[in-house]
Amino acid sequence: MEYGKATVVGAGVIGISWAGLFLAHGMDVVVCDPRPDTERLVRDGLDGITPGLAALGLPTEGLTDRLRFEPDLAAAVAGTDVVQENGPERLEVKQEIWRTVEEAAPAHALLATSTSGIPATAIARALRRPERLVVGHPFNPPHLVPLVEIVPGERTSPETVERARAFYASLGKKPQVLRKEIPGFVANRLQSALFREAVHLVAEGVVTEEELDEVVTASIGLRWAVAGPFRTFHLGGGPGGLPHFLEHLGRAMEAAWPGLGSPSFDAPTVARLTEQARAAFGDAPVAELAARRDRAQIALMQALGDTTP
Amino acid sequence: MEYGKATVVGAGVIGISWAGLFLAHGMDVVVCDPRPDTERLVRDGLDGITPGLAALGLPTEGLTDRLRFEPDLAAAVAGTDVVQENGPERLEVKQEIWRTVEEAAPAHALLATSTSGIPATAIARALRRPERLVVGHPFNPPHLVPLVEIVPGERTSPETVERARAFYASLGKKPQVLRKEIPGFVANRLQSALFREAVHLVAEGVVTEEELDEVVTASIGLRWAVAGPFRTFHLGGGPGGLPHFLEHLGRAMEAAWPGLGSPSFDAPTVARLTEQARAAFGDAPVAELAARRDRAQIALMQALGDTTP
Repeated sequence: MEYGKATVVGAGVIGISWAGLFLAHGMDVVVCDPRPDTERLVRDGLDGITPGLAALGLPTEGLTDRLRFEPDLAAAVAGTDVVQENGPERLEVKQEIWRTVEEAAPAHALLATSTSGIPATAIARALRRPERLVVGHPFNPPHLVPLVEIVPGERTSPETVERARAFYASLGKKPQVLRKEIPGFVANRLQSALFREAVHLVAEGVVTEEELDEVVTASIGLRWAVAGPFRTFHLGGGPGGLPHFLEHLGRAMEAAWPGLGSPSFDAPTVARLTEQARAAFGDAPVAELAARRDRAQIALMQALGDTTP
Repeated sequence: MEYGKATVVGAGVIGISWAGLFLAHGMDVVVCDPRPDTERLVRDGLDGITPGLAALGLPTEGLTDRLRFEPDLAAAVAGTDVVQENGPERLEVKQEIWRTVEEAAPAHALLATSTSGIPATAIARALRRPERLVVGHPFNPPHLVPLVEIVPGERTSPETVERARAFYASLGKKPQVLRKEIPGFVANRLQSALFREAVHLVAEGVVTEEELDEVVTASIGLRWAVAGPFRTFHLGGGPGGLPHFLEHLGRAMEAAWPGLGSPSFDAPTVARLTEQARAAFGDAPVAELAARRDRAQIALMQALGDTTP
């Protein structure tokens, strides 16, 4: 493998998940975070995701044997092959991190930021070689969910994009290269569009949160795990497929769009959503519910052949 | 079982799928449709979905032994236990159908319409006993996708709602009772909200249809097959769950909503979508692609324990 050594910058939930994935694929990993309790947080976090990595079919014995901690950023990226940055979502912080990385990392290293909201174009304005930086935005948590959105900035080179694509694919991920920078990228925009209507329907009292979740898992969730929205309409439109659907039903759908909701997270809506969340999810620790969800997720991915042995 | 005899009114794709599901659950089924070629269409359609019914674990030997055809509506509903109507989506046609059904069906029969868009309140204005009619809207195809949205009209009785819920649950469906009539009900509104943004992203050239579908199946589709949008944010918000998410990220999400797309199915957009559909799905017969999708769907449902033996 071309990438033997990775540096994970920023050891929050996303950083820990990347570190676990890299380790399970046999890479040496240096974790860099200024917090004094980084090592404990990362080791606890890795303990938490190890069963998930194992269920995905990845080797986890001696997982942390090749794990190191280095709070000094320049030292952490010296000799590395890939830097995956998961720092705070503030432009000036990211620019500062990447200025240091650019100086200290080898010229061949792949440079990727996990940012969900800051364009590579903006971060790379601080760099001497902006063609080296690319967004590699995972869908949380990166060790489990296959998607990585690769979003080149205006000056990111095609070579960097292709290397990023190949790197994430070699980890069993499903990287998708976006053709344009757009706020929120693709997955979060789609998620947010559906969630807006979900909040509206709950705020209007049409369904509760729990009922809405059950509607989704029993219909569009199942569908979209297997075939995306365009394919779903292609297959739902009879022999004429999507073109027939667009011709005969497109205008009616468009006419209904203005009737979709424009809710606000005002005090009464937040109060209702919070109260219903308590009713739906109770006092069970979130980590426990998440672990249960992740087990079901893995079973689903195995059924679809999406896990990587 | 309380419901031994069903009448399926309207033998399009939805009606045929209901008929297959009812037959596989041991019911006697009468199909009523004025088209002269109804019997051939229904038998061909049932042949097409029989492998799916079998894969769901339902008995399919002699599936059509208890199937009858009766073009006269009054005769078709005489002695029936449940009427599932899938006629044209026009109010006056549905009112005419239901007027006849109300006169001719036994007083104990459950009366449900598959309509995706016409409120029970409106249809029932033509009835002497509006409390008997309820919407039982499946997500296509009904024999496969678990959701049935039960939408009471203003005058539908609680007893009718409860009987409908119990009936669909006895067929292994996951019925969900809506608390208010709203155009498009819940699943289609959510689907349409996400699709609006999907069309925007393709129209803007951020991704192609095929790429967007891959983004969805590799992220939110997988997620929402296992846990709906509220649970997903509850589990993504750290130990504080959804309340913490709403408090800390709700306003930022709301601020981004006006930036989501408002596309139109104008000529250039339809041309682009049509061209990309040809590129993505090629010339493969839609029925073949759908059968392949349905097999994956069933594997997924089996992994999640959602099929009914």
